[in-house]
Amino acid sequence: MSEPGFAPLRPPQLAQARVAVVGLGLMGGSLAAALRARRACARVVGVARRAETVSRALELGFVDEGTSDLAAGVAETDVVVLALPVRAILRTLPTLGPMLPPGALLLDLGSTKAAIAAAMEGLPGHVHVCPAHPMCGKEVSGLEAADAGLYAGQVFALCPLPRTRPEALALAEALVHAAGARPLRLDAARHDRLVAVTSHLPYLLAAGLTAAAEGAGQDDALMWSLAASGFRDTSRLAASDVAMMLDVLLTNRERVSEALERCREQLERLEQLVRQGDEASLRAAMEAAATRRRGLF
Amino acid sequence: MSEPGFAPLRPPQLAQARVAVVGLGLMGGSLAAALRARRACARVVGVARRAETVSRALELGFVDEGTSDLAAGVAETDVVVLALPVRAILRTLPTLGPMLPPGALLLDLGSTKAAIAAAMEGLPGHVHVCPAHPMCGKEVSGLEAADAGLYAGQVFALCPLPRTRPEALALAEALVHAAGARPLRLDAARHDRLVAVTSHLPYLLAAGLTAAAEGAGQDDALMWSLAASGFRDTSRLAASDVAMMLDVLLTNRERVSEALERCREQLERLEQLVRQGDEASLRAAMEAAATRRRGLF
Repeated sequence: MSEPGFAPLRPPQLAQARVAVVGLGLMGGSLAAALRARRACARVVGVARRAETVSRALELGFVDEGTSDLAAGVAETDVVVLALPVRAILRTLPTLGPMLPPGALLLDLGSTKAAIAAAMEGLPGHVHVCPAHPMCGKEVSGLEAADAGLYAGQVFALCPLPRTRPEALALAEALVHAAGARPLRLDAARHDRLVAVTSHLPYLLAAGLTAAAEGAGQDDALMWSLAASGFRDTSRLAASDVAMMLDVLLTNRERVSEALERCREQLERLEQLVRQGDEASLRAAMEAAATRRRGLF
Repeated sequence: MSEPGFAPLRPPQLAQARVAVVGLGLMGGSLAAALRARRACARVVGVARRAETVSRALELGFVDEGTSDLAAGVAETDVVVLALPVRAILRTLPTLGPMLPPGALLLDLGSTKAAIAAAMEGLPGHVHVCPAHPMCGKEVSGLEAADAGLYAGQVFALCPLPRTRPEALALAEALVHAAGARPLRLDAARHDRLVAVTSHLPYLLAAGLTAAAEGAGQDDALMWSLAASGFRDTSRLAASDVAMMLDVLLTNRERVSEALERCREQLERLEQLVRQGDEASLRAAMEAAATRRRGLF
């Protein structure tokens, strides 16, 4: 490849790299904390819109230095990690691209990848890019919930583009390993189709359950006293950060709709079996689900 | 009340009572263990169909004595707790009723209450009855999963019948407190309507999610590698004991169908908002669910 403006990868090794994490919420804060705790790179720079967030990240020892100025934060930086909601990443990329030093590696942690991959393809040729998505999180958001151990043992999807060079991918994988996670390569479209089922669908079921309970609870508020661990776990994701999940759903509409439709068909079938009292078919469906679920995790 | 065959409540206090737990799975085993660990009653008798289960309960120190013979187990017993799946309780009641000593208190731990309440109304007048349902559990079943702390702090529904006397209800409440749980009185029909939403619906959503993922995973097995904590928690109940949950669904068909229909309407609405990309309405629905869920637990 020799596209106009191409520059060789700037940082030779992660250990010598200056890494900027843009966005110091749960995911960015945890990544900064993990990199710093493991002394995985030369310097961790935190960039956040609000000055108080930057101060707090410094106070918590998650970053070596910090700033609210994006251009200052990414100047002379080897690796930049965008840890923002998907649509904030999409808004930031056009401004950020030209700011990056030649040969810098740009990663992001956005939860959907197709739109970001398309936007990254259009960035100036002097930047190395690798869309990414760590498969972890919490239903609480923000820097105060950040935790250096959040990534430990978790799958971290990397969705290299045609323009992503092997040395850039290798550096991205080194960063994933440094955070304690396990890199998994797959293309952006496949990622979005699969996480629609494993992540976005569970979120919508949790939100739908909570909404259905809200209605039933209006008829009889004693209902909430009877909500125990089963309701707690099944509804947990409904408490997820709304801004983040809204971006996820709106940038993966087709795949999310397909996954939800597929699940609604299953629920309609279960409802029919319950209504009809079709014991044999209901038992078979329940046993298939139980067998599968027991084999996971 | 002076119905034919009426006998005053036999055990004066729980501390002096001989308590038989019939069924030594997760729920019965945990209750026996809790009563014995807290020395809450004079003697705990374990009754299970299989001799090995009885031996194991003795070995684990969950019971003072045990037998596979129901009649022997409940002879001279003050309190009998039926800890079996709902339809096993319904099958056992006609045989068990006449075996019980005059004035004994019979409780059950079945997960649905209307059918059991109706069956208990028909038991001989010399027995005191109180249908019950502890709002706790695990997705693993059996005696090996039993735990003296399972009931600690959990709501324990009591559904007294018209024939349930205040002194019988008081004894049932003493047993609930002895297990570390919190009694909550409500009638059987109301119980079944509410747990259809808080417990049976979450189970069906978990099973539906697992079934939908099964279909998607057949198209691309890499999907399972991307299933993280969100999928894990939302699908957890799909691993529940099938025999127990089948009885639950089949003895609460009408209420379960209503709850599922209510939830499907919410999911259809969410799907429509996602398809249309209706950001304002989608955000509002997501925020309502997040606010409610954050206020619980």
